[in-house]
Amino acid sequence: MKYGIVAFPSKKLQDLANGYRKRYDPHYALITPHMTIKDVFEADDKEIEQVADAIREVARKHNPFELKVEKVSTFAPITNTIFFKVTPNDEILELHKDLNENFFGETPEYSFVPHITIAQKLTSGEHDDIIGQIKMFGVDHTETIDRIHLLYQLENGSWTVYETFRLDEDN
Amino acid sequence: MKYGIVAFPSKKLQDLANGYRKRYDPHYALITPHMTIKDVFEADDKEIEQVADAIREVARKHNPFELKVEKVSTFAPITNTIFFKVTPNDEILELHKDLNENFFGETPEYSFVPHITIAQKLTSGEHDDIIGQIKMFGVDHTETIDRIHLLYQLENGSWTVYETFRLDEDN
Repeated sequence: MKYGIVAFPSKKLQDLANGYRKRYDPHYALITPHMTIKDVFEADDKEIEQVADAIREVARKHNPFELKVEKVSTFAPITNTIFFKVTPNDEILELHKDLNENFFGETPEYSFVPHITIAQKLTSGEHDDIIGQIKMFGVDHTETIDRIHLLYQLENGSWTVYETFRLDEDN
Repeated sequence: MKYGIVAFPSKKLQDLANGYRKRYDPHYALITPHMTIKDVFEADDKEIEQVADAIREVARKHNPFELKVEKVSTFAPITNTIFFKVTPNDEILELHKDLNENFFGETPEYSFVPHITIAQKLTSGEHDDIIGQIKMFGVDHTETIDRIHLLYQLENGSWTVYETFRLDEDN
């Protein structure tokens, strides 16, 4: 089964992201707006219990973190993905590190750019048409994230939450 | 903000339900297949922390329960909703009771029929066309549910998980 770890921002930020995603993100219906902390990995029913235990341990050691978005950015020309850039801070980077290096699944081959996707799988023409406008509207929002979620993917591509982990709690 | 409490069945049962939902349930993209344990209720950001604490207490007192589906049924003619009927047992009924009577939100005005919706908002013609076929295929599956989820609704109607509660654990 396919699993991943994400943080869901507040309703306010999710609603804002969905305003764009509805038109520009084909994954709009498969998952609500999120910041991926650990990319898709495979685990069977036995393994995932161990993974969940390990995530619980990691979550316990970490504090809630500040999620600050103040810029719209794009991965183009690598992929035509537009996103709210999350300003990196030590808490986010350490949390990502603890869940990706010497942890279940493979160590990512690229550097971590924390973000909330608002548009993807665009043609280059579509991308170039809308990037300027979305950047002009911009984004400026700060909140505290106090939990992360382990999700699994159904056959239709949608994601269900397996478990929530509170950061810095006796959870 | 709008909240609700559900149990998500296993991937296997969700995939089976989605085979029908894709065609027959306009909520297909808003939430993955689930059994509702507490219907939509309103709470603000402060209240929901108290509600979450109270759910945690309830979850702690309950054991994992058996979710057995062995029949396709319908709420017609009241509503044209078709569902996998979950065979009621004491654990499910007590859990529902503890989260609905003398709890946050309003006490339901109708009796609890545990179920997983697979089709809804059908015209009577559509309903009558497909109910026989779906009943013929039937369903027969048993599993153990060891967690429930508190969800909140976004402006577009989709649901995000706020927190997971393990049943019968020091959670």
